[in-house]
Amino acid sequence: MRCLYHFALHPCSRKLRLILREKSLDFALETENYWERRPAFLKFNPSGEVPVLVEEDGAIVADPNAIEEYIEERYPEQPMIGATPAERAETRRLSAWFDQKFNREVTANLFDQKVIRRLKGNGGPDSQAIRNGLSNIHYHLDYVGWLADRRKWLAGDQLTIADLAAAAQLSVLDFIGDVPWDDHPPARDWYARVKSRPSFRPLLSDALPGFTPPAHYANLDF
Amino acid sequence: MRCLYHFALHPCSRKLRLILREKSLDFALETENYWERRPAFLKFNPSGEVPVLVEEDGAIVADPNAIEEYIEERYPEQPMIGATPAERAETRRLSAWFDQKFNREVTANLFDQKVIRRLKGNGGPDSQAIRNGLSNIHYHLDYVGWLADRRKWLAGDQLTIADLAAAAQLSVLDFIGDVPWDDHPPARDWYARVKSRPSFRPLLSDALPGFTPPAHYANLDF
Repeated sequence: MRCLYHFALHPCSRKLRLILREKSLDFALETENYWERRPAFLKFNPSGEVPVLVEEDGAIVADPNAIEEYIEERYPEQPMIGATPAERAETRRLSAWFDQKFNREVTANLFDQKVIRRLKGNGGPDSQAIRNGLSNIHYHLDYVGWLADRRKWLAGDQLTIADLAAAAQLSVLDFIGDVPWDDHPPARDWYARVKSRPSFRPLLSDALPGFTPPAHYANLDF
Repeated sequence: MRCLYHFALHPCSRKLRLILREKSLDFALETENYWERRPAFLKFNPSGEVPVLVEEDGAIVADPNAIEEYIEERYPEQPMIGATPAERAETRRLSAWFDQKFNREVTANLFDQKVIRRLKGNGGPDSQAIRNGLSNIHYHLDYVGWLADRRKWLAGDQLTIADLAAAAQLSVLDFIGDVPWDDHPPARDWYARVKSRPSFRPLLSDALPGFTPPAHYANLDF
């Protein structure tokens, strides 16, 4: 069976799980503690990063963007990027915004500091990084709200990988209670819509020993 | 006319110039000192990053990956990503490797520290970053050489955006004399092949006041 090597609380791994489920493609999950740089995994992806997709025919695809484009090309039913070149450009711009810019400015400063550093045995978080992450998240949530006020979904009329990219990042921060939802009602309403989709359900039961998500994390009504 | 907002020594701006020229698409260039966050430019791209493509029909496309996929979709002649989903996945994996991983581990530590910090008025480089960049570049050049020894071009039999991504990163480091070519002959031979293409010529005459590239920078025979 198709297999996704992933880490449960890794944003781009979550994004790929959501895409596969939205497209109704079956897959098995293999947990990869990517920071351990396991030699057999480095053969799949020399960068050592998750996610990696291994297809039933043996095809190995690494890099989140390469995987999602590959899935869209091989399984075009239920398109997740958009119909026209202009729609697809807007989806890809926003998807990169969350995969890269949001991750660098927010998730790396909060989740990676509080959780991944501990899993790696690198000690406690850097307090300046935490302050930066808690400050930066507000303008990103403003942007999500601004988009959600003007469009049905973040990139337009359809749910796309842009929504899944944003929701995947926010979901790992929500797991540690770091999303100031009360300050950003439009972003909260959009997130509640994504969170209530069947594709999202499995993410809400992921567990990480030593961490307990807040009560609202898995509550579909917030 | 089609216009690319760019910064001459910015790797992804250079990559897009190379793609447009390889596809024989005419374009004008507008220099954008992106760190100044000019309000009119932020309307084109709220992330404030170059490059941004403005098409003759008024379409505005931001984000390097979104632009190159848009160009490939609208102008499929002279394909630059590959033919099959598997080929395209490999091209995209390597393109992301250089656009993101190489940029983060090498270019940000060397070029951004030595040049962009000075242009921003942020003072001199951080010496630990320089040491990291000078150390990291070796394994990336080993990887380029390993790929070039096994394939005609980095992603396969055809020149793709993976070659242009790698060459664009290396070209800005070569501008400041920071590429240890003599230690990596296979990477050097591959780079000489990319550098001698007509699409590369305009990049080699880019100037930056206060910086003089080494003699070999614009020498097609190295």
